[in-house]
Amino acid sequence: MKENVKVILWGLGLMGQGMAKMICKKRGFSIVGAIDLDPSKVGKKLYELLEVERTENNDVVILDNPEEVIKEKAADVVLIATASFTKAVYPQIKFAAEKGINVITTAEEMSYPKALDPELSEDMDIIAKKNGVSILGTGINPGFVMDYLVLALTGVCEDVENIRVSRVNDLACFGKAVMEEQGIGLTKEEFVEGVENDSIAGHVGFIQSFGMFEEAFNLKFDKIAQTKEPIMANVERVTPLVSVKPGYVAGCKQMGYGYVNGELFVEMEHPQQVRPEMENLSTGDYITIKGTPEINLKNTPEIAGGVGTYAICVNMIPHVINSTPGLKTMLDLPIPVAILGDVRELIK
Amino acid sequence: MKENVKVILWGLGLMGQGMAKMICKKRGFSIVGAIDLDPSKVGKKLYELLEVERTENNDVVILDNPEEVIKEKAADVVLIATASFTKAVYPQIKFAAEKGINVITTAEEMSYPKALDPELSEDMDIIAKKNGVSILGTGINPGFVMDYLVLALTGVCEDVENIRVSRVNDLACFGKAVMEEQGIGLTKEEFVEGVENDSIAGHVGFIQSFGMFEEAFNLKFDKIAQTKEPIMANVERVTPLVSVKPGYVAGCKQMGYGYVNGELFVEMEHPQQVRPEMENLSTGDYITIKGTPEINLKNTPEIAGGVGTYAICVNMIPHVINSTPGLKTMLDLPIPVAILGDVRELIK
Repeated sequence: MKENVKVILWGLGLMGQGMAKMICKKRGFSIVGAIDLDPSKVGKKLYELLEVERTENNDVVILDNPEEVIKEKAADVVLIATASFTKAVYPQIKFAAEKGINVITTAEEMSYPKALDPELSEDMDIIAKKNGVSILGTGINPGFVMDYLVLALTGVCEDVENIRVSRVNDLACFGKAVMEEQGIGLTKEEFVEGVENDSIAGHVGFIQSFGMFEEAFNLKFDKIAQTKEPIMANVERVTPLVSVKPGYVAGCKQMGYGYVNGELFVEMEHPQQVRPEMENLSTGDYITIKGTPEINLKNTPEIAGGVGTYAICVNMIPHVINSTPGLKTMLDLPIPVAILGDVRELIK
Repeated sequence: MKENVKVILWGLGLMGQGMAKMICKKRGFSIVGAIDLDPSKVGKKLYELLEVERTENNDVVILDNPEEVIKEKAADVVLIATASFTKAVYPQIKFAAEKGINVITTAEEMSYPKALDPELSEDMDIIAKKNGVSILGTGINPGFVMDYLVLALTGVCEDVENIRVSRVNDLACFGKAVMEEQGIGLTKEEFVEGVENDSIAGHVGFIQSFGMFEEAFNLKFDKIAQTKEPIMANVERVTPLVSVKPGYVAGCKQMGYGYVNGELFVEMEHPQQVRPEMENLSTGDYITIKGTPEINLKNTPEIAGGVGTYAICVNMIPHVINSTPGLKTMLDLPIPVAILGDVRELIK
């Protein structure tokens, strides 16, 4: 039998812990390292933090110094879940790739890093090829629902006139970083100011999704526009992390528009909020493709964001290990598939 | 600028003509050959048959002798739409591949040929590699709705308990071969007899879809079962090709069951009929994945079968040309995407 697939976790927030727990349930993985800066986690055993049974495949101490963990070919893949932005994860990706370790990251901008950071992307591609590894950013969105899945559906189309995608989702499953990026709990004025001074990122992903559309369709949008509006709570909305009182911001409604030859070609609607069901708002993913044929797809409720993100990252591990070296996007690799059996049998 | 992507069409029934017309609307393609055995088509110019404008990229005579058309590297790809079964298209595929031409076929069994013809598949893989070409079978189903799309959706799942897929569709867009395979227009007794003596194939695809599930999930079903029941017309159902009187067979309801460890893991329901809307039956594609998270997807009406099949075949042309040599399935290649711009720019 082949050796276990060796994994290092870098970042143990909600996404990192989700990936770690999922890996603990699967066959053929060994977690050989875990990194986090949070003093309340450092020094603990990973299985203690996760509250799972101790096995020989999860018996590692959480350290705060990457150099003690990320050593030359210490693992087959490192899963980086530390930040949303390419510039923030780039040094971590570089560090791991130069040690001959493949990288998968939840960082939203890394789902299509060329969109905002073409030079860093070029650099990561060179580093990956030089070290014989591949690098992938993915997640539920960007990475799947509002881009990849839509593009795959156009694969059965003779022609596409325009595309409308809407994802109405609950943020309660995400961590503190996402809550802050969305302005959850602010006043309306603070939200508007935050959008103006860029302290409220909102959904990090439209620019990356548009980039993925451009590459897949081999076109250039002549204009991309985005708007962000606050979603105000009318009742108290409570999650394990936050409590939003009526009159405060419960979410961010983000719209994205991509124009081709002056016509709206891709429209994205993404109202993200905590616990919409407390105000009887139903959630779902909606994809409408006008063209030949028409496609009119609904998935209700929405594919849950938290588990969707950590699951796709873990499920892509075999494809990333099997891939030719380089900086990859979901467009370069075969479709993700749930890992049900022993992951070692999926490695070529 | 690169040379046009050169295509040969082999088989000019509804699917072949659909592919040809679609190609005529796209930029960067040249149709360099067309083959069909139907005496009413042989000798005609392709653009006459298609009733499209004559251009330098579709000005070919339809011939019945493949040897006059399929010459050494005469094209980048040949699109074979002549039959449903691997054994029937195998000699044609071999002939084209040995001339150094990539192959895409609508033949349903070729979407996962290993399921029924492992030796021919091995043989095609060897031939493809020897000649530096790739071979792909695809279509709306098998090839996309009831297998590939379902598998891609499991890519965001931490775990999958079971899967139910239903495709309720209209057959009116398909050709004569499909109508006969489904027993359209027969009496109930003729249908039942036809199922027993295998003259009614029904939907050709469940075995291939199950095979694709097995490979993607790296599992073996311990039992696969299928049933076929007639759908009887209560009113007259008319299409350009057939007219089904009340009391006669308007379609075939096929069910498929794949068991793992004695439990039903994948259930497929596929009632295929001509013009269900004439009896107020609504059509659609329905995918339910029980697991973490749950997925509950509806696409209504169903993705149209005819255009879906020929579109995905054409849209996969760049991936097949760019692929490493060998016999491929949809699981081996990146997602299909609608070709909107000049196809030459998609060739690496």
